[in-house]
Formats: sequence, C-alpha cells, structure tokens
Amino acid sequence: MKRPLLSLAAMIVLVCCSRVAQAHEPEIPTAIGVAEPAPGGIVAPTGITGFAPDSIAAQLAREARAARVIRPDSLRRHLRTLTEEPHVAGTPADKATADYVRQRLAAYGWDARLVEIPVWLNYPKVTELELLEPVRETLSVRERGVRGDKDGFAANAFDAFHGYAASGEVSAQVVYANYGDVDDFKALQRLGIELRGRIALVRYGRIFRGLKVRNAERAGLAGVLIYSDPTEDGYAQNDPYPRGQGRPPDAIQRGSVQYLSDGPGDPSTPGWPSTAAGKRLKPSELKGVPRIPSLPLSYGEAQRILERLDGPQAPKGWQGGLPFTYHVGPGSARVRMKTVQDYAVRPIWNVVATLTGRESPQQKVVLGNHRDAWVYGAVDPNSGTACMLELGRALGELAATGWRPRRSIVLCSWDGEEYGLLGSTEWGEANAADLTQNAVAYVNVDGAVSGRDLSVGGTHALGDMVAEVLRDVRDPQQRRPLWNVVVDRAWSDGRTTWAAANRMRRLRGEPNRLFEWRPGVLGSGSDYTVFVDHLGVPALDMAFGGMHGTYHSVYDDFDYVDRIVDPGFQYHAAMTDLWQRVAQRLAEAELLPLRYTDTAMFTLDEIQSLEERADDWSAGKPDSSRFNANTTPLRASVARLRNAALDLERRSDAALEQRGPWPGGSVAAVNTALMSTERALLGPGLPGREWFRHELYAPGLNTGYAAVPLPRMGQAVLEGDAKAWGRALGPIIQAFDRAAGVLDGVK
Amino acid sequence: MKRPLLSLAAMIVLVCCSRVAQAHEPEIPTAIGVAEPAPGGIVAPTGITGFAPDSIAAQLAREARAARVIRPDSLRRHLRTLTEEPHVAGTPADKATADYVRQRLAAYGWDARLVEIPVWLNYPKVTELELLEPVRETLSVRERGVRGDKDGFAANAFDAFHGYAASGEVSAQVVYANYGDVDDFKALQRLGIELRGRIALVRYGRIFRGLKVRNAERAGLAGVLIYSDPTEDGYAQNDPYPRGQGRPPDAIQRGSVQYLSDGPGDPSTPGWPSTAAGKRLKPSELKGVPRIPSLPLSYGEAQRILERLDGPQAPKGWQGGLPFTYHVGPGSARVRMKTVQDYAVRPIWNVVATLTGRESPQQKVVLGNHRDAWVYGAVDPNSGTACMLELGRALGELAATGWRPRRSIVLCSWDGEEYGLLGSTEWGEANAADLTQNAVAYVNVDGAVSGRDLSVGGTHALGDMVAEVLRDVRDPQQRRPLWNVVVDRAWSDGRTTWAAANRMRRLRGEPNRLFEWRPGVLGSGSDYTVFVDHLGVPALDMAFGGMHGTYHSVYDDFDYVDRIVDPGFQYHAAMTDLWQRVAQRLAEAELLPLRYTDTAMFTLDEIQSLEERADDWSAGKPDSSRFNANTTPLRASVARLRNAALDLERRSDAALEQRGPWPGGSVAAVNTALMSTERALLGPGLPGREWFRHELYAPGLNTGYAAVPLPRMGQAVLEGDAKAWGRALGPIIQAFDRAAGVLDGVK
Repeated sequence: MKRPLLSLAAMIVLVCCSRVAQAHEPEIPTAIGVAEPAPGGIVAPTGITGFAPDSIAAQLAREARAARVIRPDSLRRHLRTLTEEPHVAGTPADKATADYVRQRLAAYGWDARLVEIPVWLNYPKVTELELLEPVRETLSVRERGVRGDKDGFAANAFDAFHGYAASGEVSAQVVYANYGDVDDFKALQRLGIELRGRIALVRYGRIFRGLKVRNAERAGLAGVLIYSDPTEDGYAQNDPYPRGQGRPPDAIQRGSVQYLSDGPGDPSTPGWPSTAAGKRLKPSELKGVPRIPSLPLSYGEAQRILERLDGPQAPKGWQGGLPFTYHVGPGSARVRMKTVQDYAVRPIWNVVATLTGRESPQQKVVLGNHRDAWVYGAVDPNSGTACMLELGRALGELAATGWRPRRSIVLCSWDGEEYGLLGSTEWGEANAADLTQNAVAYVNVDGAVSGRDLSVGGTHALGDMVAEVLRDVRDPQQRRPLWNVVVDRAWSDGRTTWAAANRMRRLRGEPNRLFEWRPGVLGSGSDYTVFVDHLGVPALDMAFGGMHGTYHSVYDDFDYVDRIVDPGFQYHAAMTDLWQRVAQRLAEAELLPLRYTDTAMFTLDEIQSLEERADDWSAGKPDSSRFNANTTPLRASVARLRNAALDLERRSDAALEQRGPWPGGSVAAVNTALMSTERALLGPGLPGREWFRHELYAPGLNTGYAAVPLPRMGQAVLEGDAKAWGRALGPIIQAFDRAAGVLDGVK
Repeated sequence: MKRPLLSLAAMIVLVCCSRVAQAHEPEIPTAIGVAEPAPGGIVAPTGITGFAPDSIAAQLAREARAARVIRPDSLRRHLRTLTEEPHVAGTPADKATADYVRQRLAAYGWDARLVEIPVWLNYPKVTELELLEPVRETLSVRERGVRGDKDGFAANAFDAFHGYAASGEVSAQVVYANYGDVDDFKALQRLGIELRGRIALVRYGRIFRGLKVRNAERAGLAGVLIYSDPTEDGYAQNDPYPRGQGRPPDAIQRGSVQYLSDGPGDPSTPGWPSTAAGKRLKPSELKGVPRIPSLPLSYGEAQRILERLDGPQAPKGWQGGLPFTYHVGPGSARVRMKTVQDYAVRPIWNVVATLTGRESPQQKVVLGNHRDAWVYGAVDPNSGTACMLELGRALGELAATGWRPRRSIVLCSWDGEEYGLLGSTEWGEANAADLTQNAVAYVNVDGAVSGRDLSVGGTHALGDMVAEVLRDVRDPQQRRPLWNVVVDRAWSDGRTTWAAANRMRRLRGEPNRLFEWRPGVLGSGSDYTVFVDHLGVPALDMAFGGMHGTYHSVYDDFDYVDRIVDPGFQYHAAMTDLWQRVAQRLAEAELLPLRYTDTAMFTLDEIQSLEERADDWSAGKPDSSRFNANTTPLRASVARLRNAALDLERRSDAALEQRGPWPGGSVAAVNTALMSTERALLGPGLPGREWFRHELYAPGLNTGYAAVPLPRMGQAVLEGDAKAWGRALGPIIQAFDRAAGVLDGVK
C-alpha cells in the first residue's frame, strides 16, 4: 500500500495527487482514524509505507496488542527503582541500575548483556566557591532540599561540578559574559573590558556549556562560572519546583564541559573505540576538554555576584530575569573558585538487549536511551529508561507468543551519556563495520517526558514513517492523534513563513506547495550523534517536552515526575506506545520506509534559505566579500537525488502492491540501496572536526546542540565567509551525486 | 538647486540618476559636508530643496548665525525655571510657566500672546489604595523621594491619579490582564476567568493607557490598576534613577485615560472649539472617557498584589520582570481602590508667539511644544520648552538685525496636552479655516531630550527637507552629521528587510531599489495630531530619545535631566539648532519643500506590505474569509499621485534653477497646490471616529499611540475583516485621485 508523500515539490504535484487518489482506494484499517481536517491543505498520512496491502491489518493488530500491555503503574515502578540513588556514570549506583535493566530485559525474554567499557572521566574531590569582596561569603555548591521530597536532601550526591572540568583555583574579579558565545566575548572586548585573568560569569542557554568554557579560555579568562538565569528555566518560565516545573533558586545545573561540537565520546580515544588495552591519549595530549576550571551555580548564588558588578550596563539582549540592571563588570565582587577533579579510567556499562529477527537477523533496528544521570535523573534520562523497560516488556509478551520481527530489534541502555555520549559513541565506533552494513535506523529517547509537547527530530528519510505512526497514537490529554497535535502546532508556528514561501514560489513561477510537517533537524546533545553524524544511520529522537526547570539538578527526581510532570504516567505510556510502533514498523516492513525524496526536498529548501541569508548578509557589501558562488550545480545534484528516489519509490510501491516485479530483481536489492543512501551522504569529514562526516546534518561549530544543516555552507553564512561558501559546494555535490547514484543503480 | 529624491521608485531610477548628476554640478556650500559614505548605496542629500542656487549660501549663513546664538547654559536656566514647581494644566503654577514663556518670547522680540481656553478637566480629591486580603496593607500612591534630589520630595504634587478618570470605589479580587489590550481580555475569557466586578491589574506599554481602561470596561471589570512593569522601563532596561535612567520601584506613571483613538481634545466639545459660552456636552453625554475608576501604581506596590495571584500561569508573553511567576488570578489578593475626582471647567493657557513674514505673512510655519506636565515634567515636556525658548531667542536675534522670514513663524506653547492634547486641538479647531488655507507645516517637539537617539517622525512629503537639515547638524557626542547617525541606525535595523524586499522586486521583474531613510509614521500621543489627522497639515515630530524611566513621575525633574540625561545640555542645543533650521527652511524656501513623490512611494510600499499581511492571514482560510478585493485600481491611483508629483517637482526645480517659467504661471501657484495636496488626502472621516480624516495617516483604533497607515485597510488586516478591506478601497482611491488632481492642475 502506498501513501502520499508529505513533502513532494510543487514540480511533482501531479504525481503526488495521483498517489493520493490511489491511497484512498483500498480501505485500510488504521488503528485510529484522523478525526479532524488538517490545516493548510496538508494531506494526512493514510497508508503504511513499506507494507503490502494484505499485511497491513496484521501489522496494526500486532502493534495494538503490544500497546495493550503498556501500563502506567509499571512505568511508575520502573522509574521509582531507577531513581532511588544518584547514579553518575561509573559509580556503584550506576552499576546497580545497569544490573536492574539487564535483569528486567532478560526476564522479558530478551538476550540482554552488559557491555563494560573503560573510559577516562572525572569525579569532584574539592569544590569551593566564595565571595572574597566586598564581603566574605561562602557560596553554596549544593541544593538545600525542599520539604515533602525526601530525595531533595541528597547527602550522597556529588557537590556541584562539571564533567571533564579542569582542576584549578582562581581568585579574581568577575565579568558577566551573557551566554558566553563567541560574539559575547567579542562584545566585551569591543567595550574595552579587560578579560585576561578574570573569572567569567555566564548564563546557561543558547549554546552547549562546554563551548562557553572553550570561548572563555580562548578569550584569556582564568575561570568560568555558569549559572541558570531565571529567564531561561526559572520563575520567568514556570513556578519553581516544588510548586511547578520551574527551576528553584538553589538548583544547580551540572553537566559536561567537553567541547561537544569537536566530537563526542571519550576524549582520550577520539575517533576509535575505548578499550582496556587499546591506544589512549595522555591527559596532556587531549583536545576538546577545558584547561581552565569551571563550576555551575544556582541563580540564588549567582545573584550575589552579579548584583555587585559595575562597569558599563550589559548590552541589549544580555539582561536576564534577576531583579536589577545587569552590568558587565568588573566591580566590587572578587570571587575565589577552586575545583579539584579526580580523573581516572573507570568502567561504565551499556546494556545491549536483542530480539533476533526471523528473516534478516543481521539487520538491526537500534533503540537507545541513556541511563546514567547527574543526580537522580528522573526526567533525564530515566523517564526514557522506564519507557524502554516497558517497551521491552510489551514486545517481550509478543515474542512469548512465538512472534519474531522480520529484522532484529536491539535495545541499548547507554552509560556515560552525560559526560559526552560515551557509551553510544564508543559502542558505535567499536561496531562501525556491522552498523554501516546492517543498521536500518536508530531511534533515540533521552528524557522521555518533561511535559506534554511532543517533539520529533530526525533524518528526513524517516519523516513519512514517523508521521504515519503519529497518526496511530493518541495524545493522552487532548484525546486525538498525536499527528494532529503536532501538525497544529507546526501550523501555528509556521503558517506565516509558509505563506511567504509560497508568495516567493509564485513569483518564481512555481506553483504553491502544501503545508507540511517535518521532523526537526538533529544537532547533537544525545546518543543519536554517532549514528547520524559519524555512521550515516537514519535516526529519530523523540520526547514529550516542557519546561524542565530541574534539569541536571538534585530536584530532577521521582517526586518531580510523579507529582508535577506526569501524574498518572499517561505520557510515559504514550511515548512507550509510539516507540514500540516505530520499532515494529522498521523491523517488520517488507520495503524499508526510507524516503529520500524527503531528504532531497528538505535540502533544496535549505539551500534556498541559506542563499537568502547569504543575500541578506551580502547586502551593501563590496563585491569581494559577497556570497556569489554559483549554486546551480548543487541544486542539480540534489534534484538528481530527488528524482532517483521518487522513481525508485514509485516502482517499489507498485511492486509491493502487485507482488513484484521488484526493481533490481528483489526487495532485498531495494532495501540494500535504501540503507546505503544515508551512508552515501557521508563525506571526508567536516573541516577541523573530521569525525563529523554527514554532509547534510551536523551540530553548529559554535552551538554544540543546535543543528546547522549543510554545515559547510551553514557555517560559512554564520561566519560571513564567502570563500568558505565557495569551497563548500564541491564535497556536498559529490555526496548528493553518490546518493543519487546508489538509488539510480537499482534498475 | 535641486537634489536627488531619497525614495524614488526603481521605475524612475533613470530620472533620479540624471537628477543626481545635476545635483553634483554647481558646487553648493553646505554647512557640513557628509563625511562618511552612507551604507547600502543610499544617496546622501546634496542640495537644499526649494532654494534657487543663488540664495543657498545666504540661507545657510543665516541658519549658522542663529545656531551660534544657542547656548547650553541658557537652555539649562530655562529648564530650571520651568521645572521649579509641579505644573499640571490649569493650576496657578501652570499659569506661572505660561507667563514666563510669554514674557521671555516677548523680550526676544516676538509678538507673544496668552490664549486662554476653558476646558473640562479633573484633579484628584481622594486617592486610596489598599490590600484587604490576605493581609491588610496600605499601598502607596506617592513617590518617596530620593536622597540628593530636593524635587523628589514633592509635597505639593497631586497623589497618583489619571486624567479623565472616573470617580468610584471598588473592593474586589484582582485579575492580571497583561497590557490590557483587546486580545488580552479575550485570552482571559478563553481561560474561563470570571472578569465581571473584579479589578484588572494591567501593565503599562504597547497601547495608550486610556484604551486599557476602555477594554477593561467593555470586558465587564469594575476598576483598573495600571502599573509600570520593570521589564518596560525599570531595572530590566536601565539602572533606576538616581543611578541611571530607569524607573525606580516607587515611581508612578500618571497620565490621561481618555480614549485617545476616538479623538483628542476636550471631551465635552468633541469636534468643535471649546469656548466659555459655546456648546458643551453634559458629563452624562460624554463619549471617550471611562466609566470605571482607574489608578496608576508603581511596580514596588504592584508586586504586593501580583505575587498573591493564583489561577493559571499567565500565558506566553505575559510574564514581566518581577522575580516570580505571573499568574492571571484571582487569588488571595483582595484590593480596595477609591478615587474621587474633582471635575470642573477650568482655564488653560496656550502661548502663541509670531514672527511675521515679509512676503506671505498669512502663510505660517507653526512650531509647537506643550508646557503642562504631570509633575515637574523636566523631560516631558519642558526639555522641549527650553529648546523653544532658546529657538525664540536665536531667531529673535536674527530679527533684531532687521531680517524677517518670507513667511510667518508661529511658536505655540500648548497647555493641557497631558489630559488629551487639549490646547493644540482646541486651538486647531478654532483656527481651522485659517490653518487649512495658510499652514505650511507643523513642527512638534514634545520632550526634546530623554537620551541620544534621534527619532524623526513625519508626513512623508517633508522627508527630503528634514534629511537635508539632518545633514547640516552634528550629533554632539558622535561628532558627525545627524543624518549619518540616523541612516546608520536605519541601516542596522532595516538591512535584512531591505534585502528581502529587493529579492521580491527582482522576482517581480523590477530593479533593485536603493536603501533609503524615511521619517517614522506619526500615530498620536502628541500635539501634531490635530494638524495631521484633522486638518491635513504636513507635520514633523522630533526628539532625542532614550529610556525615559521617570516618565510622568515625580522623578522626571531637573536633577534627572541635568545629571543623568543630558549633562552639559549639548543635546538640548542640538535639538534647538535642528528645530530652528527646519523652521527657517520652511519659512524661507521660495518653492515649498513638500515632495509628494515620497508620500506616494511610501503608500505603494505600504499597500505591498498590507497585501502580504492579508495574504498571510488568508493562508489556509476558506475563500469567503480571504482578502481578495482587487487593489489594482488603488495602486493606479497612488501611481497617478506619484507621477503628477514627480512631473511638477521636475518642472518646478527647473524653473527655480532657470528663474522660470513656472508651472501654472508663478511659484505661488505651485506653492498653493503643494499646500493643498496633503489637505486633499483628507476624506469623510474614518468609520466610527470621523474626527480623523486623513486617508493615509492615523493612530490604530486599538493602539492609541502607534500609527496604522492606510487606516481603513490597516484595521481590516489587524481585525481579519476581509469585507472591511473591500469597503476601504473606494475612499482611499478618491483621496489619492483628488491629490493627484491638485498637482496635475498646475499646468
């Protein structure tokens, strides 16, 4: 059965429409009908990509059977067990959670194993922070606890520290550097503020925290304090816990300060697997970790420094939510910070559990969630771990009836994610050959539930499949399909942009395009990174999001989830259902639901958007610094991929419906090509960070978390570098030509 | 001598370029050369519109002579005298300032007269505000004063009150309604919050305060408290006074709550002059003033109510700068408010001073500033009054040498502006026939200096003239022409929009357009309103702006200006110079510098922008509610005005250079037509508020201050009313056809 593509270009609207018409003919049983009309003329998904008409009913019935196994009380019980103790990667409590997960999955019928990996990481030995002047006051490096929540008083938690922080002691005046991004330090220099030897006080947000330390170090500062401004996740967003989801004034955001956008994983084994006997860099040889000390702190404590800064008023956009006017400093505040970190090679423990496939057991659908936490990690990550265990139980019950999926399903409970995606990266590097050959897709759930807004990020080839699954799962509160919820939000966010884009299309002589929903673009910050960016495996990342004000603090605990975030655990249940259906479809589909038309259409739109931003940047500039490299060959290359994908999709869909003949002689030939296409978009590695090989997806060099699609071109625009833009085109064209070639090769 | 137009359309670029070339031929003496290249290819003004080549040197010399008279210490002395006492309209202290201004101008050689006008207005008799529950606390309705500023302790100031407030007493629970705009009350209703009988707590900002009360009254509330949130003008913007320009926690923004967008002036004489014996509505017949009581309050006091509200968290965008999460209420806070207002018909005093013209004494260039203040009014309005007095002194010294301008210059020191533009509106209505016949332009300066950022608003026909004057006055701190400062800021704000608009133009097959600077669009809120909106007189409004955190509080006093805002009074001097040069050019130009090509080009751009917004709004809507009325006839009408204006400007510039022959036989014929053109854009009055007659310029119906250009179409888009859009076109076309006809009539 075929279904209309969500993102076909206007040029192929006729084709699209004929497919829509076809899709309506044979009545197909969907688990849930789409109740309401979608906005903007968007076509609701109707079929199930990759399944023959006579196999759809059985597939949906099997998904529903697993869904009926999922129970909120079971999810709650898992979460309570997982979050009894602080379980930082490599600690005994962490090992206990690994054992629990392995033992549970084994009990549910999975082949579940502990995979121990030795990694280099730090625990804090000494953490001291005090105001020396104008008054001497100790600044707290622990939360105080709140009444009614036993876990809030965590005597067995570490003091505030950063993963991969440098040891050091600094006594110095303080300057406020906003988010600590490259432009913020430049702005301070333009203001004539002396930075050398001083301590930077920066706020969390906008970019990954490690890059804040990197930027401070490059600007000559001696230490960095990173605090959570209430405008980001405190009272300006939500009532602070225990009343609401916002950050309390004493809550400290711990976290890694690895230079994430240079590459994740154990920094002493960059680009190769970490093993007991294998090669390992010496601490002095390490790149991508700070040389200057850093500490996180709460806004309650940061206020005592910040309100004592003088100097010029902070520039426009630097003011946060504390009740006074921010100044850049320095001023009367002198601060002493001291951190001593205990570094060692220590074991961490992934749990890898397999349900072996019946037909193509070597092919794998990999599902992942990390398990290690900065303290209790009730939302991040163990709401996701609870879902994984419940998913294991649900599919285990199916398996107990004798069913096996067409392909293998592999559950991975990662360790050491918080330090730098250690468990997934090292495992990905160790199993690179197998994954390159056999990984169908990777489906990540980090914190599963911090609110009620579903966010789905992913590589675009998976967009149609995930849209179909969203149609079949209901939002627990809104009582309508998640697909409608997600599309409505996309419509309210994107309607004006879409109308404006259509105006441009009409002026260019192209017809209007229908409004469409697409998964968000993956940057970094969770375990999908090695799969997408290093191995070219299609991936998804899903969460019910909300204001997660206890993020990385002691208050991200069981009471927070149980009483505030998801009382009743209905959203945990919905995520488990969503995840297990995605897994079942990917593992069971006869034809893999990978649609590179969507990848190509996204890329064409992105080129358009980058060209407009380049045009904006060039406005009024002399010719020599304008972006004027010709992008026509690039557009042609991407259009080749679009055409090749569309052609193969049409022929494969027809073969599926008519039981052959298959392009290339067999569905296996088609599936092999589809699995190779994302890999074909890997290139020689991005400039200065060769570990990142995808030519379409990458985190920004100066963002860490956020994606900068078409990174060579995207970075060039961000940096106003017209020459880099010119150099970018070649490798991208080669990648898209390769990908088109793979699909064109199936004749 | 002619000069290049700043805002010619791409279609007439060739014409424009030939004029640029001409402009470079005869070397003309400018007071200050434009030192730096302007960004984006913008053409710097080079000539002086309306002056023959052989008269330019003398004109610039005369302007420079007046400029040399201006002295900071004299400006400072004027301000100290004007702000000695609180001088609310109609009080003895207000009369004393009127006498001072009249006496000073008379001493400087002007024919200066007091014009007494009886108006209906209120003073507070009783002002009480207290928290009843959960604790009983009196809330302060006065400022406390700050050390080092004698004026801050103003025993002789009124308690907090609103101009045109209703008397009343309410004890009720409180709901928070954000800015109190129409959509805010709708949002509360959608949240299911009971509004009837309660007190609305709303924050200042976004819309005119009177409309907040109007909207609350329509939504069924019983009373309104309006507070200054620190995010608007308090610590989130600037260090509070006395350290900086921000609002202190106890500062109260007084102000009028007249429904300004229905029409300004004495509400008991709507549309006709207020006289002792003339017709006057009874209080029960009044429209445009509140029926429910209202009070202003400080954020220090508002916090004590707001932090006690429960109910749902305030919607996205409603959170302000106080250090807790805002809720919409109600909650434990119960408040009692009582205001008793003493209403009476009382005299106010305009001062009108004339320097009679030598050649066309009946034609007048009107300069205006109000003099009445809510307390001391050091910035608002008396920084402007000081400038007017110094301008009077400077031109008076010129006149003492025997010089008289070609046309008369009239200085107006308005009274009662704060209550509702009373002095200017009533005077304008009383002198409507003369002004319609003879007013060349009106140049307003309200608060002259609250910072260093020059803002110039105006009708577009005056844009070229004012750009030329900006070129000839230096920014005191940046030491370069104001024109460069203003263009640089416009470029940094508008560059991306400009680049995007050019992309659209290229796609439409039109050539790129040069970046251009235009005056801001006038809405309402100061004394230009009757001139532009009711009488169709071209107008300007100028100020050096900044964060004016003491606005309408006791702290807008001499110390604030003298120590914080403009120490040295250099910006006062710059404003005086700017104002006197504008006055001299308008009064002396042989050919009036009114360029309706600019008006037409702005209108065409505005139609384009409105159509795009209408298109955005229509996206995904059914056909019946889409904006699809045909705007081609409107564009054609506006293009007729553009062509007629361009043709007349070219022929007149040629006549000026070659000493005739003049279109229509004489320069007087051309000038008469130019003066009639803005008047021709007046129509039958806007729907529901017929006092507003301009078809291009008006304040928004729901904004009060901010302009909504092409108000019939603009309101239709804001309200999503496709039918109103259809009805709008006819009257606008008629107005532009009339204006084109006036200029075409000069053959």
